Amino acid sequence: MATPWRWAAAAVLLLAVSATLPPVRGFSVPLQRPTDCGGDRYFDISRLACAPCGAHQRPSDGGSSCVCQPGYRMVSSNGGSSVVCEKCPENMTGVTQDGWNCITCPKGLTSEGTCKCSNNEIVVERSIDGVLLDEALCLHCNGSEQSFSASDASGNKCVRCEQTFINASKSCDCSSPNILTGGLCFSAGENLPPKGVATVRFAQLGITLTSAWFLKNLQSSASACWLYSNLTACQALGNMCVMNMNSLGYSSTDACGLFQYIYVNTARLGVAHSIAFWRHNLPWLYYGDRPGLASQVLEANNFPTIFSFKGTDKDVKLQFIAASFDAAGNFLKWQSLEGGLLQLCPDTQTKLNAAYAFGTTYQQSCKISVSKILLDFANPIFYDLFLEYNGDDGQQYLWDVPVLNLNLQYSEIFVNQGTNMNSWLLTRRFFLVDALSGKENDLEKLPRVLRIASKIAISIRLASHNQRGTIYPPLLTIAYTDVLVENPETQSVMVSFSVSYEMNQSEAQVQTDITLGVLGGLAVLWSLLKTAGWKRRTGSSIIDLQTVLKFLLFYAGDLANVFFIITVGTGIYWLVFFKGQQFVSVLLPLPSQEEDFVTYVACAFSLKALQFLQLLVSQLTIDIFFIDWERPKSRVVKGVEGEGVIKSAAAPVSIWRTYFVANEWNEIQTVRKINPLFQVFAVLFFLEVVGFSNLALMDSSSSLERSSESYIAPWSRILRFGVSAAVWLAIAGLQIIFFSVCYERFVEDKISQFVDLCCVSNISVFLLSHTCFGYYIHGRSVHGHADTNMEEMNRNLKREAENLCSQRGLLPNTDGQTFQMSISRKMRLHYDRIHETLTRRRGPARLLDSSANTFEQSTKAYNIMNKFLSSFINHAHKEMDYIVKDKLLFERILGMEFMEPIEKSLFYSDEGQSFSDVLYYGNETTLLIFDILFFSVVDLASQSFVLAAILTYLQQEIFRFIRSTLGQKNLASKTLVDERFLI
Amino acid sequence: MATPWRWAAAAVLLLAVSATLPPVRGFSVPLQRPTDCGGDRYFDISRLACAPCGAHQRPSDGGSSCVCQPGYRMVSSNGGSSVVCEKCPENMTGVTQDGWNCITCPKGLTSEGTCKCSNNEIVVERSIDGVLLDEALCLHCNGSEQSFSASDASGNKCVRCEQTFINASKSCDCSSPNILTGGLCFSAGENLPPKGVATVRFAQLGITLTSAWFLKNLQSSASACWLYSNLTACQALGNMCVMNMNSLGYSSTDACGLFQYIYVNTARLGVAHSIAFWRHNLPWLYYGDRPGLASQVLEANNFPTIFSFKGTDKDVKLQFIAASFDAAGNFLKWQSLEGGLLQLCPDTQTKLNAAYAFGTTYQQSCKISVSKILLDFANPIFYDLFLEYNGDDGQQYLWDVPVLNLNLQYSEIFVNQGTNMNSWLLTRRFFLVDALSGKENDLEKLPRVLRIASKIAISIRLASHNQRGTIYPPLLTIAYTDVLVENPETQSVMVSFSVSYEMNQSEAQVQTDITLGVLGGLAVLWSLLKTAGWKRRTGSSIIDLQTVLKFLLFYAGDLANVFFIITVGTGIYWLVFFKGQQFVSVLLPLPSQEEDFVTYVACAFSLKALQFLQLLVSQLTIDIFFIDWERPKSRVVKGVEGEGVIKSAAAPVSIWRTYFVANEWNEIQTVRKINPLFQVFAVLFFLEVVGFSNLALMDSSSSLERSSESYIAPWSRILRFGVSAAVWLAIAGLQIIFFSVCYERFVEDKISQFVDLCCVSNISVFLLSHTCFGYYIHGRSVHGHADTNMEEMNRNLKREAENLCSQRGLLPNTDGQTFQMSISRKMRLHYDRIHETLTRRRGPARLLDSSANTFEQSTKAYNIMNKFLSSFINHAHKEMDYIVKDKLLFERILGMEFMEPIEKSLFYSDEGQSFSDVLYYGNETTLLIFDILFFSVVDLASQSFVLAAILTYLQQEIFRFIRSTLGQKNLASKTLVDERFLI
Repeated sequence: MATPWRWAAAAVLLLAVSATLPPVRGFSVPLQRPTDCGGDRYFDISRLACAPCGAHQRPSDGGSSCVCQPGYRMVSSNGGSSVVCEKCPENMTGVTQDGWNCITCPKGLTSEGTCKCSNNEIVVERSIDGVLLDEALCLHCNGSEQSFSASDASGNKCVRCEQTFINASKSCDCSSPNILTGGLCFSAGENLPPKGVATVRFAQLGITLTSAWFLKNLQSSASACWLYSNLTACQALGNMCVMNMNSLGYSSTDACGLFQYIYVNTARLGVAHSIAFWRHNLPWLYYGDRPGLASQVLEANNFPTIFSFKGTDKDVKLQFIAASFDAAGNFLKWQSLEGGLLQLCPDTQTKLNAAYAFGTTYQQSCKISVSKILLDFANPIFYDLFLEYNGDDGQQYLWDVPVLNLNLQYSEIFVNQGTNMNSWLLTRRFFLVDALSGKENDLEKLPRVLRIASKIAISIRLASHNQRGTIYPPLLTIAYTDVLVENPETQSVMVSFSVSYEMNQSEAQVQTDITLGVLGGLAVLWSLLKTAGWKRRTGSSIIDLQTVLKFLLFYAGDLANVFFIITVGTGIYWLVFFKGQQFVSVLLPLPSQEEDFVTYVACAFSLKALQFLQLLVSQLTIDIFFIDWERPKSRVVKGVEGEGVIKSAAAPVSIWRTYFVANEWNEIQTVRKINPLFQVFAVLFFLEVVGFSNLALMDSSSSLERSSESYIAPWSRILRFGVSAAVWLAIAGLQIIFFSVCYERFVEDKISQFVDLCCVSNISVFLLSHTCFGYYIHGRSVHGHADTNMEEMNRNLKREAENLCSQRGLLPNTDGQTFQMSISRKMRLHYDRIHETLTRRRGPARLLDSSANTFEQSTKAYNIMNKFLSSFINHAHKEMDYIVKDKLLFERILGMEFMEPIEKSLFYSDEGQSFSDVLYYGNETTLLIFDILFFSVVDLASQSFVLAAILTYLQQEIFRFIRSTLGQKNLASKTLVDERFLI
Repeated sequence: MATPWRWAAAAVLLLAVSATLPPVRGFSVPLQRPTDCGGDRYFDISRLACAPCGAHQRPSDGGSSCVCQPGYRMVSSNGGSSVVCEKCPENMTGVTQDGWNCITCPKGLTSEGTCKCSNNEIVVERSIDGVLLDEALCLHCNGSEQSFSASDASGNKCVRCEQTFINASKSCDCSSPNILTGGLCFSAGENLPPKGVATVRFAQLGITLTSAWFLKNLQSSASACWLYSNLTACQALGNMCVMNMNSLGYSSTDACGLFQYIYVNTARLGVAHSIAFWRHNLPWLYYGDRPGLASQVLEANNFPTIFSFKGTDKDVKLQFIAASFDAAGNFLKWQSLEGGLLQLCPDTQTKLNAAYAFGTTYQQSCKISVSKILLDFANPIFYDLFLEYNGDDGQQYLWDVPVLNLNLQYSEIFVNQGTNMNSWLLTRRFFLVDALSGKENDLEKLPRVLRIASKIAISIRLASHNQRGTIYPPLLTIAYTDVLVENPETQSVMVSFSVSYEMNQSEAQVQTDITLGVLGGLAVLWSLLKTAGWKRRTGSSIIDLQTVLKFLLFYAGDLANVFFIITVGTGIYWLVFFKGQQFVSVLLPLPSQEEDFVTYVACAFSLKALQFLQLLVSQLTIDIFFIDWERPKSRVVKGVEGEGVIKSAAAPVSIWRTYFVANEWNEIQTVRKINPLFQVFAVLFFLEVVGFSNLALMDSSSSLERSSESYIAPWSRILRFGVSAAVWLAIAGLQIIFFSVCYERFVEDKISQFVDLCCVSNISVFLLSHTCFGYYIHGRSVHGHADTNMEEMNRNLKREAENLCSQRGLLPNTDGQTFQMSISRKMRLHYDRIHETLTRRRGPARLLDSSANTFEQSTKAYNIMNKFLSSFINHAHKEMDYIVKDKLLFERILGMEFMEPIEKSLFYSDEGQSFSDVLYYGNETTLLIFDILFFSVVDLASQSFVLAAILTYLQQEIFRFIRSTLGQKNLASKTLVDERFLI
């Protein structure tokens, strides 16, 4: 076809062909695999289906083409089934190995129909220049001196035989007494190592099996290593010892026994690189078994590089490098651990490499199916691990990384599984997967047992505080799992890889203990003082059980504060010093070392909860009374109907001002210095949306963002607490500043509003929080009366604004409206007596009492109480008088009174509106700390800021509901204001 | 050493050795690589360092041992450097190939020092039985008939030469005119295909290069395929066409041109499996290029399996299976796609396999370094993809999966990159990475260009609603990226793999459009009606600009509801029908199809925001007045000082009840039917903590939990909206039920409390929300007066509880306290006149006005207004009377009044407390929908429920603050109650 050929023509043709096709219908092909085709069909790779072979043919080994049956020669072959076969003539029954010719075989045929010769003979079908012989020859290779030839592996050619045969016998024979092992020949006269035991122990499964690999190679490797110091043989022997878990003491002639024999007896060869454990020519497997050697190896020296957290230099990365060997002992290459060399779980490059960023705690684990492991790790690879650093001379140096093999047995004891470093036996070489030693008879078949490094942990230990950024040599801990291979498709293994950072935390522990001791002692003193103050306020002086209980409650609150200070301090300390450092001087405590911290947080929370409940109870039981100063202004002129007589009676004083004040008091009960909901939402916003929570990750980055592609390190509980507490405190601080500086000054201050309201409505508040201690808000109107119409109210307010009337204070010409009171016992007794009648109606119902009577009684009691208290304030009772004075500075600081109100009650002027102590408002610190601790405890338990925020909100709402509902009930019962008006 | 050898002895020796060692110090080894050792040192694998070779030696190729220099023979060798070399004698300068003997070479030496022969000759060093020759021979292989032998690849042996040589020339020569190509020999006389062009086009880079692989194999494959129908050669030719992107039309003799030539000219061979496009002996590459064929292939037939979402059967999985071939055309095996065959990004088995769970939208992408790709995919593998299913006969069948190669060019046009299915050219075979065709000169070197399947997308299309669970054949879309290999270590490629599910959404779209049209029309009607009602209430009848604006505002609100209903309906529809189905009948819209939906949500939100703002403005401008019914009960007896005269004046009516009522009204302004904060927290709890958000994942699971090991599918925006709206509505519904059934009945009902308070305090509320429409709360005390002391208050309450007094209603013997009012224009004018004096003080300050005057004026106006309104209610004004009637059912439903209040005002009794329409309380629906839409809009924009919750809270707080602050100002100005009392 020499004419120019155009694609267009083909396209036209193609179109023509397509045009005649029926419309497209669903294409469906039966699924056939090469193995389905059986013994007389081949697999047609074009049709992807089985097809029959021609006459006298059978499928080839792969199954994808046909070949001639024995006794038939190929005439032509174009692949697939296009093979033509022809029967060989009677006198030439054999077929040449290439299949194209018939040949006479002198010594019979193989099953494939080719010629067969006896052992040690080669089959010759062609002469040396390629001329095909009519009859094949069976020749003996000339093994005599100079030629030293023997049949090669294929049996078609004579080649020089193995040198050990020649050494041992000056021929290619290795007859007795010479010893033939592993394809090598050893002279019986030589000083051979003891005969090895080719067993491998799988201690987890309790199986000891004879390994085909050991059987083939153990003796020969040991002998070659011993006799000739053959490097590869020594490495192979070492690898067999590693496959036996470096275990010593079982048998003196297993792989490790033989290695030790050679190690001990080759001391004369000297050591490599001046390292005492690294014998020349041998692999470095052990660090020696001197007791205590492990701690010396691990802690005697520092790694020369100074690591840092920030910077783009090499010193932010751990540059691990491993020398890799195959099972036969050949050196493969130096490999960096980056790229996931030791990480069996698949992941992206970036995430895998994050394991070696200094300071990043790394954890990875997954389940891998045994079939995938068998596929990916058919041949074991052995690693000698080093950590790389740059010397002063610019040369790169290596530092050996010791391996703690948890499966190692020393005299049948798992010495490395204990925590006692002194009994550890450190080793050097390790592997990831060994599917070789578990093969019992045939190296081509699946292994019976598979051994997998299921847990690999690299531990980096900081040397000391003083030398910033220096570490001890890292330790690689490996635990192997033995898997009995039964059904690789369904079996799977859990594997994990981790890098952890630790340092000696005893110093921090001691400091925490000291702080706890000192602050705990101060807390006792402070609680004693508070108890004393409380005793004074309750007016009793006997130390009874109640006093002790009260002391314990005070102590609980103070201790809660101590724990809170310590935990917040610790959390923020770690946050600042761990995340902020450049040259590494502190590392986070391990999760196991965080337990103490969590206990402290739990203590703080439970003690604070106790204090909070006590606060709630005490606030819900205060005594309160609203003193109405209003006097009837007139007498009502009443016409008594039907009689025409006009009577005059005192006009009732309107109760609505009292209702108004009570209503307001009810409303400010749960007002707080901060907006607790905004607090929760703002905390959630900063933690979850802005990303402050990322500061709690155990890595070296102090950025608030993490890309979705980067590795996310595990959380540190201490850092989580530190971050959340810091955010809580910061936002609470800002809120308090905002509310006290801006909001309460310019928008609304509920507490001052209430005091003003008292004054405007001509009503005073008399509050007793303790038996003999309480608060007084002076609300006597400067205008004498307040129960009037809008016109007069407005006029009064205006007069006051223009300073046309006297000042509001209790004492003339002062402004002081709020007071603390220490009342005398006499006064209290009087109060209680009146109060008794007021509350009697809630005693058990008596037969004679009608509800109307009690109702009238209590109204009467209300009037008596009102009269009594207003006269008390007016100094009308000489025997129960009071004096007003200022509190001493010390009294203010300690929150107690030094003077006892024996004769006269004492009023302390109080600009700080400390009556808010009986409200939520005055106890913001306690509430805030309780909220923070509640949030943190939920978060520590659930590791979820969202859940913590939701539950904190619920907690706040529930306690607020309890406080306001019960507070309202208490208010109604103490002041007689109908609960229906408290809306 | 024949005596029994004990391990213990060795241990003792080891200890003895160790004991003499110096204390352990830091071990440090210089890092040396085999390549660092240079030309005269070898790499000692035991010491992991370079060491010098002995005399007359050089390092071996791998560098890990020494070998003799040319001209020297080995005397002994134990690996490493323990090699002994000896110079060959003068007359035998050559060395045998095994290196152990010296030999005389007849035709000179190679650079390695072994014997060299001319081409076509073989080197013979030993006789056929292995006897070493003194002088090597150079022999010509006998190529004549019968023997047909030629030198093998190593040049040491004569073997039968390639069959094509024999066919072409009856010898092992392929001299002209026969054609030698790719190791095959073709006779010039035969009908050969046209001569191929061995170029590969990399269209993205604009590079066309001559590929070494094509140069070697293109012509020979085409010829062998054409002449002998060699299956492997045909596959290899097909693979070369695939490496050329199946592009047609460039050249009639590139790989695809040759394939087409053979395809067209072998029509006589018939087709495989009755598939018209699958020519016998050839690979199936194309579906033909008939226009419109693609849509026929993709949509004419359904896949026979019925897929389902729930169940453990095979029908929940897509069982893809691929036949794999190597570049040379050999069939490798059938491979399931499970295990990540096509997924270039590494991940765990579970996550990789999730791609083939039916219904799970799968997306994976990552960056891979070119060096890793070159390592893992050194040899390209070609796949023919099928989908497996079980036939009725139990046999497994395959369904072909068409491939849409975006890089395919047809007559230089990228036909597959358009959206027009009719111009697509579907193909079959594809590869993942091709590092072969880009090799220019040497197949051993790195390729110049690398081609990577950077975007693989499998698209599953549901056949129709009616046939549940049936799909069309899947479509595999591939985009290749060409990478110019320059620095493999630093270069990287972004690759992605995705599985998407789609169905024809036009039906759903039409339904949505119809609903939108119908409801939109109804909204117009409803808005017109509301505008009419509003006109009646404002008392005007002219259609002015304001009316049109008002209509538009009403329409905005109604349209917002329409959009809300449609979006919520759509969202919940998808949620229920997609997640709930067993046999698949609906699939989610693709992200691109969600745009309409997002637009609807945005419309709903902005319209609702408009309505909400309008609501806020109208609530902030209502007219309100508190009518005080209290009359002075007495005359105050005043002693005028200094004169001794006793005067009597009307006792002022206390304003405190008004303060109290105003204060309560102020407090209920922002009370809602639900607790909005609990709502936000509960929604967040269910979405984020309980895990309802997992329902928005585009997978088939309807479980609320996802394990951390399983694949997390991408979010669907529609489902996110559906889930969040459903949770919002459900929780809001529960809250409304709880509040209306339990809380308001048993704990507290703020609205009823207010009405009661009015009655107890003897104060009525007169509210005008429109010019001529408003609400009236009748609060006249049944006891005639309420401004009294506690005793009387309690007595009154008790009397009422015991039913001893009349009923509270406006009409005698009724209970109805709340009314809607349509007031006449006359009444309104009168009201406005009084109101003017009341509000005049806020006009511009005039010179003559002193502040005292305006103050007194407004107090006066207050009294006049109080008098006027109370007399109006008391029917005192005959010309402005009113009648009380019940509203018609229709009036209630439409929310408008049919009768115009011309002569008399109309009072409609109203048990539903509809005055709450001027409060937050009566507009819960609007507020709730606004909150839901706000939450959803934030979530759709940020994909974060936490942020949405936080911003929703902020929004609520801000609007609540605005509403209560401005509402308080309005209240103070309209009722003259001093703002200081509204606390």
